[in-house]
Amino acid sequence: MAQSLPKRSENYSEWYNEIVKRADLAENSAVRGCMVIKPYGFAIWEKMQKALDDMFKATGHQNAYFPLFVPKSFLEKEEEHAEGFAKECAVVTHYRLKANPDGGLMVDPNAKLEEELIIRPTSETVIWNTYKNWIQSWRDLPLLINQWCNIVRWEMRTRLFLRTTEFLWQEGHTAHVTEQEAIEETERMLGVYATFAEDWIGLPVLKGLKSPNERFAGAVETYCIEGLMQDGKALQCGTSHFLGQNFSKSFDVKFVNKENEQEYPWATSWGVSTRLMGALIMAHSDDQGLVLPPKLAPIQVVIIPIYKTPEDLATISEKINPIVEELKGAGISVKYDDSDNQRSGWKFAEYELRGVPIRLGLGMRDLENGTIEVARRDTLTKESVALDTVVDTVKVLLEQIQQAIYQKALRLREENTHRIDTWEDFKIQIEKGGFILAHWDGTAKTEEKIKEESKATIRCIPLDAPEEAGKCVYSGAESNRRVVFARAY
Amino acid sequence: MAQSLPKRSENYSEWYNEIVKRADLAENSAVRGCMVIKPYGFAIWEKMQKALDDMFKATGHQNAYFPLFVPKSFLEKEEEHAEGFAKECAVVTHYRLKANPDGGLMVDPNAKLEEELIIRPTSETVIWNTYKNWIQSWRDLPLLINQWCNIVRWEMRTRLFLRTTEFLWQEGHTAHVTEQEAIEETERMLGVYATFAEDWIGLPVLKGLKSPNERFAGAVETYCIEGLMQDGKALQCGTSHFLGQNFSKSFDVKFVNKENEQEYPWATSWGVSTRLMGALIMAHSDDQGLVLPPKLAPIQVVIIPIYKTPEDLATISEKINPIVEELKGAGISVKYDDSDNQRSGWKFAEYELRGVPIRLGLGMRDLENGTIEVARRDTLTKESVALDTVVDTVKVLLEQIQQAIYQKALRLREENTHRIDTWEDFKIQIEKGGFILAHWDGTAKTEEKIKEESKATIRCIPLDAPEEAGKCVYSGAESNRRVVFARAY
Repeated sequence: MAQSLPKRSENYSEWYNEIVKRADLAENSAVRGCMVIKPYGFAIWEKMQKALDDMFKATGHQNAYFPLFVPKSFLEKEEEHAEGFAKECAVVTHYRLKANPDGGLMVDPNAKLEEELIIRPTSETVIWNTYKNWIQSWRDLPLLINQWCNIVRWEMRTRLFLRTTEFLWQEGHTAHVTEQEAIEETERMLGVYATFAEDWIGLPVLKGLKSPNERFAGAVETYCIEGLMQDGKALQCGTSHFLGQNFSKSFDVKFVNKENEQEYPWATSWGVSTRLMGALIMAHSDDQGLVLPPKLAPIQVVIIPIYKTPEDLATISEKINPIVEELKGAGISVKYDDSDNQRSGWKFAEYELRGVPIRLGLGMRDLENGTIEVARRDTLTKESVALDTVVDTVKVLLEQIQQAIYQKALRLREENTHRIDTWEDFKIQIEKGGFILAHWDGTAKTEEKIKEESKATIRCIPLDAPEEAGKCVYSGAESNRRVVFARAY
Repeated sequence: MAQSLPKRSENYSEWYNEIVKRADLAENSAVRGCMVIKPYGFAIWEKMQKALDDMFKATGHQNAYFPLFVPKSFLEKEEEHAEGFAKECAVVTHYRLKANPDGGLMVDPNAKLEEELIIRPTSETVIWNTYKNWIQSWRDLPLLINQWCNIVRWEMRTRLFLRTTEFLWQEGHTAHVTEQEAIEETERMLGVYATFAEDWIGLPVLKGLKSPNERFAGAVETYCIEGLMQDGKALQCGTSHFLGQNFSKSFDVKFVNKENEQEYPWATSWGVSTRLMGALIMAHSDDQGLVLPPKLAPIQVVIIPIYKTPEDLATISEKINPIVEELKGAGISVKYDDSDNQRSGWKFAEYELRGVPIRLGLGMRDLENGTIEVARRDTLTKESVALDTVVDTVKVLLEQIQQAIYQKALRLREENTHRIDTWEDFKIQIEKGGFILAHWDGTAKTEEKIKEESKATIRCIPLDAPEEAGKCVYSGAESNRRVVFARAY
């Protein structure tokens, strides 16, 4: 029997690391801060990609591909952007190695680049430099482009999926005739992200605006979705930026409007990354391992035969094979694990660890009774159902599990969201975790003081927050709405 | 009316560049040698990826993701591999920029990496370093992994899609218990590539072995598929390598076999890249522009209304809309272009340029007659068919076009494949282009001399070449089979 996982309640951080490792999702590579995404983890990411890509295309976006390299001079063009990313850039300075007289290879000093190239930390600069040639007239707008690619930001403290030096993501980059249209696009894509988080990952998210301090470097306004993890910490799951005319001006991109005048287009950019894998893991998993939402599970149903002799296995398989075909025909991803190298108990634990939503178990006694055991991963409950109705049971159950894990995560968030009105209460609550709804005076100074004293940051100013007169939880100054504080990943 | 393309027969190179540009496939970026793949080009690449990915999965492979960075010391481990790639490596030496006192940004000299990182030119080293942890026992084998990613090889002379500093590709990396099994895998994946080239791109390819001189650096044997372009030059379209135990030994990867003994596993790697886009363009296109095989066309059918008044357009659209729905229902990608910003003649030329396989045109006279005009992009022929049978016509025609362009490319190759027996004839024929089947004495020296004097290389030693006694076309020495020579991209 494999060693059990650390308990969430005892060591959340180790629990997370062990799930990532033992469910075969990812591992650290030999290159500091970079991860290897293993086949099982990558299969989940592929499902995420497919769902998101379909949603992007349904909202009129097209995919394209832009270079990995950003010339240093490009990064310099938008001042805030440059300042925001300069400290975490991987820099290519040479384009050749040569034999080292002492053995091995060395950088060839004669192959120094005239201008250093940065590995893209995000692609606004490269893309807006390209848009200069693509945008001439209002007829070229809106320009709605997305890119799936790898990104490098040199992080000092890394964590699999949550914060890695290299990660995979998509970045949308759009250009519009009017400010209003660009803002609508920014909000539309935030909505797409929220829908994906809730309907696919099963994670309820708050939609809101970042405070100026937390804005994307170069944005006029940053929108975000924020989820609450089981340890009471927040996780930013996606951002959508209204960039105003900052990049069109920096890269001198203009279009001729219907009145035949030159104007700068309005821009947005938006992205989600492999960090969503971290959100997925932390949102639902338990002390037995991963819990996957059926919509993103590479294996939705595993079937395990329980037998003693090869003859029994043959008898069971004969009954199972048509069920496998029927499930496949219904578009359900099913695995019949009749391998003989492990006992059924070991297999039960293994598929639990890997978060497979439904497990079917069939033994000789079940066969006699015409029943099959159906086990739910999310609730760890089992029931015996008639063998001839099992396909319908599975179809209904997959839908129910998808709903149930969302509802469970929603309850968790509701139970861990607190309206706090005094600094004393704030300091007590923040130690317990969760979202804190509190008044803030709107100044960067107060925001920084709160962070310094409590390690809490403003996660967002919720889009649906009602106006409410109150006093800042820290400074006591006037405030007209509550914002969301939490400690965060 | 847009300016017409350069003619293939007059300036093949310019013709290619103009198609890439004007069909909106790709463009050069501001970063030397790197391309921007535009939405229309990327949509074709996505279709290629999907088809290949399905074939990889159907043959038991799983996707994963490995780091972009290769530590210099990894590259050094396999000597031939190191020598082969050292000269074209982009090297990351620093991980931070800082404000330049003179303005702008500069590399921070305090952020120098202890060990330089190479941007992956291929991932054998990173992956085999990882496999060390994944492979312990014969039960872990075969390990069948594929990765879709970007690659950087610092090329001095670049050409959109055909040879770029950064390109997109997939790389399969497998590990096996026996030599025989690894060789079978190498050949199986070569077969997958050949099937893709022929059934999807519509390009007949020769399957063969590379001569030792042309082998992948670190391979025991390199298999390839070679296509013939319309200018008589060869294009290597994909390679599959039998790596022997070179990488398992370099990275000290061992497994315990069934007899409880330690062994080094046997390896393969195989890849195709965005270069296939170049093959696609050059294989079929004509002086009117791109010709796309229906299976890879982002738009398979375009419908263009021919009208004078908005009332006419409304009448036509009423008839067209159900046809559009019916085509979509049949899984056909269709675009009804009722935009009013261009005349129908301009649209005809534009979709021809973009290679859309079938164009349907409907005017008021057609409506009266109950007919519709069906134009084939590959033959540039038109016919009028009954409106109520058009969906069936389109279905059949898409299949016919897919076959026809393959057959046309096959004829081109057959007409341009020559058995040559003397050096005089060789030198004459090589100027005219095409594949030359000639005897070769098997020595690197002769191969190099032939290349020097004729610019022809050995494209491959065909897998199906019959034994045939003869004399080397250059040296006159004994030879027992013909090999394929050509000038190549």
